[in-house]
Amino acid sequence: MTEDGFKGKVAVVGLGLLGTSLAMALKSKGVEVTGWTRRKEVRDWALEQQIISMTDDRAEVVLSEADITVICLPIPEIIAFVNKFSHAWKSGAIVTDIGSVKEVIVNAGEAVLAPRGVHFVGSHPMAGTEKSGPQNAFAGLYDNAEVFVAKTEQTDAAALVQVRRLWELIGTSVVEIGIREHDNLVAHTSHISHLLALALTQAVLDCNDELQPLRYSGCATGFRDTSRIASSSPKMWREIIENNQDAVLDTMREFERRWDNLRTIIEKGDFNAFEEEFAKGKHLRDAWIDYKNRTRNCGW
Amino acid sequence: MTEDGFKGKVAVVGLGLLGTSLAMALKSKGVEVTGWTRRKEVRDWALEQQIISMTDDRAEVVLSEADITVICLPIPEIIAFVNKFSHAWKSGAIVTDIGSVKEVIVNAGEAVLAPRGVHFVGSHPMAGTEKSGPQNAFAGLYDNAEVFVAKTEQTDAAALVQVRRLWELIGTSVVEIGIREHDNLVAHTSHISHLLALALTQAVLDCNDELQPLRYSGCATGFRDTSRIASSSPKMWREIIENNQDAVLDTMREFERRWDNLRTIIEKGDFNAFEEEFAKGKHLRDAWIDYKNRTRNCGW
Repeated sequence: MTEDGFKGKVAVVGLGLLGTSLAMALKSKGVEVTGWTRRKEVRDWALEQQIISMTDDRAEVVLSEADITVICLPIPEIIAFVNKFSHAWKSGAIVTDIGSVKEVIVNAGEAVLAPRGVHFVGSHPMAGTEKSGPQNAFAGLYDNAEVFVAKTEQTDAAALVQVRRLWELIGTSVVEIGIREHDNLVAHTSHISHLLALALTQAVLDCNDELQPLRYSGCATGFRDTSRIASSSPKMWREIIENNQDAVLDTMREFERRWDNLRTIIEKGDFNAFEEEFAKGKHLRDAWIDYKNRTRNCGW
Repeated sequence: MTEDGFKGKVAVVGLGLLGTSLAMALKSKGVEVTGWTRRKEVRDWALEQQIISMTDDRAEVVLSEADITVICLPIPEIIAFVNKFSHAWKSGAIVTDIGSVKEVIVNAGEAVLAPRGVHFVGSHPMAGTEKSGPQNAFAGLYDNAEVFVAKTEQTDAAALVQVRRLWELIGTSVVEIGIREHDNLVAHTSHISHLLALALTQAVLDCNDELQPLRYSGCATGFRDTSRIASSSPKMWREIIENNQDAVLDTMREFERRWDNLRTIIEKGDFNAFEEEFAKGKHLRDAWIDYKNRTRNCGW
């Protein structure tokens, strides 16, 4: 039992950037961490590096001994894994995940695990970098991150507390939220930005050969940052948008209302109104940045 | 005369971030730099710091001795300054500027200066930071930046060469371009990004009090970077958009075609097509980043 009241053995499934960093962070807090991932060479590497204390070729062996399992896989693979290995957990065990959407994952997890007395509680840590893979992992990845822990009517209260404690133990700030509320939220705070970065990149750089050298010269730091997340993984973002289609479409329409308003103002040539809109936007963003500076310790 | 073949006395008008940094950079290359700016205390400070070698309460005194004058002011003030002080330059003098749009500025500059035998050649260095003011200036601001030098049918060939040499002397890379072509280009490579960052910020952060704490928690590094330039100066961006209205509206419509395509794909649920679009966008952006890494030496 650690100083923060968290007890039990944690199995981390999926040793990519997020899973390996999580195992490192938990181990640094004195938690016993086991692990399983598809590739044997990564399992062996993690054991050699003492990032995990135990693994096995058969996932069932690792899962059967775990008090809490954290599934750190892409969205479709989280759902497939829970379905495939639902028999492996002991009754009373807790299973959580790190997927970027919660409704499809939590519904699938509860449907298959609740009948077996296994508690599924979905999580979503707002952490990551543009890199991937265990070679880029580091124990501090989750420092000061905010983590959403998703509740449903079925959520076991004691299991929820244990999942909260796991995240809080590694220095994150936990926010409880409903699954649909979560997916609506991240459509706004994350998914829409990826679609904008993508459409911007296409509008600026998908041009004829004659224009391209000028476009390359004319793009500087503003374009670089506004478009940065268009360099993310196409497969990962396909899976996220595919599993949050309705909320993403609602958020796209919300963006379009703001965009159309700006276009109308510019068409009318009402630049006093434009300056007011810009000042309001700047005020909103500067206030959010101030909040992050006050509540985080990560150099924002 | 400097080693690069640039000769003459340069007057910098407007000692903000861009003007002061320019004076510092030119001085470090052995150029004689004089200066004028509206606030007497800044003139005195720049003289004391030996950033400029001469100033005067009357702008005319500074301008009358300059071979090249670089006007580093906001767009409307560049135009107002050229109109107010057109009598001050000697015949054969060259006047350039750093404004973010070129058509309105160059048309105004040529109209008033050409009859007096003074050569106006517009410039636009792709340099700057989110900060402003002479206290944030540094000689390296222009290092490796790309600078557009705008040509018209009236442009004096020898004056164009001198303006090129001035920018090349301080380590920038010069691209010659027509004034309307320039304004169309920067509508794509810069102006549209500011409008997207603004509309995104409004769509995400302009919400009711109940939603706000969750939105604050859910926004992380993706939103931070995509929205960064929404924290820019409302007055400066009003002036830029106001003076590039048609090209900005064209570019907004170009963005909307890309955006509508993505929305249609998501509405149809054709996520194979979505993944293909994302992969194409990522490829376009990664290729541009590779170009910047090859051609610049600034840690991109």
